[in-house]
Amino acid sequence: MKIGIYGYGNLGRGVESAAKYNSDMEIVGVFTRRDPATVKTVGGSPVYSANDILSFKDEIDVLILCGGSATDLPEMTPKLARDFNVVDSFDTHARIPEHFSEVDRSAKEGSHVALISAGWDPGLFSIARAYASAALPCGKDYTFWGKGISQGHSDAIRRIPGVLDARQYTIPVEAALSAVRDGNTPELTTGEKHRRDCYVVAEQGADTALIEKQIKTMPNYFADYDTTVNFITKEELIRDHSGMPHGGTVIRNGKTGIDGGNSHTFEFTLKLDSNPEFTASVMVAYARAVARIFCRGDYGAKTVLDVAPTDLSPLSPDKLRESLL
Amino acid sequence: MKIGIYGYGNLGRGVESAAKYNSDMEIVGVFTRRDPATVKTVGGSPVYSANDILSFKDEIDVLILCGGSATDLPEMTPKLARDFNVVDSFDTHARIPEHFSEVDRSAKEGSHVALISAGWDPGLFSIARAYASAALPCGKDYTFWGKGISQGHSDAIRRIPGVLDARQYTIPVEAALSAVRDGNTPELTTGEKHRRDCYVVAEQGADTALIEKQIKTMPNYFADYDTTVNFITKEELIRDHSGMPHGGTVIRNGKTGIDGGNSHTFEFTLKLDSNPEFTASVMVAYARAVARIFCRGDYGAKTVLDVAPTDLSPLSPDKLRESLL
Repeated sequence: MKIGIYGYGNLGRGVESAAKYNSDMEIVGVFTRRDPATVKTVGGSPVYSANDILSFKDEIDVLILCGGSATDLPEMTPKLARDFNVVDSFDTHARIPEHFSEVDRSAKEGSHVALISAGWDPGLFSIARAYASAALPCGKDYTFWGKGISQGHSDAIRRIPGVLDARQYTIPVEAALSAVRDGNTPELTTGEKHRRDCYVVAEQGADTALIEKQIKTMPNYFADYDTTVNFITKEELIRDHSGMPHGGTVIRNGKTGIDGGNSHTFEFTLKLDSNPEFTASVMVAYARAVARIFCRGDYGAKTVLDVAPTDLSPLSPDKLRESLL
Repeated sequence: MKIGIYGYGNLGRGVESAAKYNSDMEIVGVFTRRDPATVKTVGGSPVYSANDILSFKDEIDVLILCGGSATDLPEMTPKLARDFNVVDSFDTHARIPEHFSEVDRSAKEGSHVALISAGWDPGLFSIARAYASAALPCGKDYTFWGKGISQGHSDAIRRIPGVLDARQYTIPVEAALSAVRDGNTPELTTGEKHRRDCYVVAEQGADTALIEKQIKTMPNYFADYDTTVNFITKEELIRDHSGMPHGGTVIRNGKTGIDGGNSHTFEFTLKLDSNPEFTASVMVAYARAVARIFCRGDYGAKTVLDVAPTDLSPLSPDKLRESLL
């Protein structure tokens, strides 16, 4: 299977690495909007200009789109889905229906398959919610995120005057997580489920008390959460907070029985050292499914909910039944 | 959707109960090999003789087979898949390929759809293994079962002379589970992953020391495990050990990155008050999928690995994308 990588940041590097764990995959090249001469790939893949992508139309089975959800993908995915089978990781939850319908139109016009919103949330977490609610129709869902770096919250801190750099960890509130894990079904706000730990590098002589107050009172981002602010040096930030860990837990507690007398807990947890590398690894598995769906002539936009587990595996259905069932 | 229940033990009762949580389902009837007059259903469904099943051919969309895997299903599923769309919970792991191919032939001859081995293991656990290995191709899988009642091990104790009744709980070894959950990848035998707790009612005057020794040294069943034997009264057994709890955990630890430098943990856990009711609830969700696959004319045997999450839900794909992604 011949894979193209469109966009080469953390996610693109993750896709290039993930391909090496899948012996049925081969990277045709990395396509960048920067000057290709300035881009060095971690796995030695050739680099081309994004402007030349159409000349690779017959050489790429699936193009993996590694742009951002805010401005890149809403334009990129519909445009490229006309000429390529594509996978993206569009993760602006509220705008997924709109993105889906634009990509669907374009993929159908070009007779291609486009899988949107691959990754873990949206992605594997969405799948867990689907199985959980199908198996336990009478129940209540919870999603806890973290411990992990939230890019949006880190950026919000960086915009405060006097802040040089910052990292924000979203962390589940242990008592809330334990209560749900034990089968309880409390009503919990996002703020009751999570706390926020901030590591901030301030400018020399900055008013750290004021920065801390500005963080803790910031509406939407921090005001409704138990927030801790730690001032550290640039060296400490680089040494201790350069990783991109993330993860979380989806839990559904539900009842069965003629009188609802029996309770069940369905839990799915991910603990990820590298959010972009894991997301990329999931995208690569869905690229395999996209190639198969394309061969069956079932064109248009798809999501992870539309793909059977069999289509993700390099093993034959026979082998999968033998080894996994 | 019109559902028939074939066989009416714990699993059949679970299916009858589960249908009431799915407003798109209706129970046509329960089909029993016993005298229908002697069977009283928990949900008030009508009871018919299994001998009359063929006269319901046009009234049932999906027939849910609630027989046992040892002797019932190997015969029942291929036979009934010729005339009905069916779901079974065949769980003899080693014989699944053989069962699949017999059911497949028969379902294709009769132009029906037969989903085999629905439940949680095989079933949701198989699905978790499939997603985990697709997302983390370089990794190692673990399955821990319990805490839960093992029917086979309980039966093995009951066959010992002097034993009136018994229940055996399979319990994960906490240290092994914690080590794996923390990202380690030790080599572990089934005996290193599980311990066995036995509750035994002995005949008056029986040699309990001898019974305990016979349990603990029983090859395959107990000899390789840390086994505890507790002698209790019949009343205590009924009071404290009448439930059918079960569950377990599937974990995969895997690596990503160009040099394999980042680790990830994928964990799926079920805690079930009632093994048969949860299994039944999963079977009912797959009955919905079977009806849809039948409408698409995709006849033959299927497993849970062949079904996309969308097909399990009563919600439309639009609504699912909006609410779950």
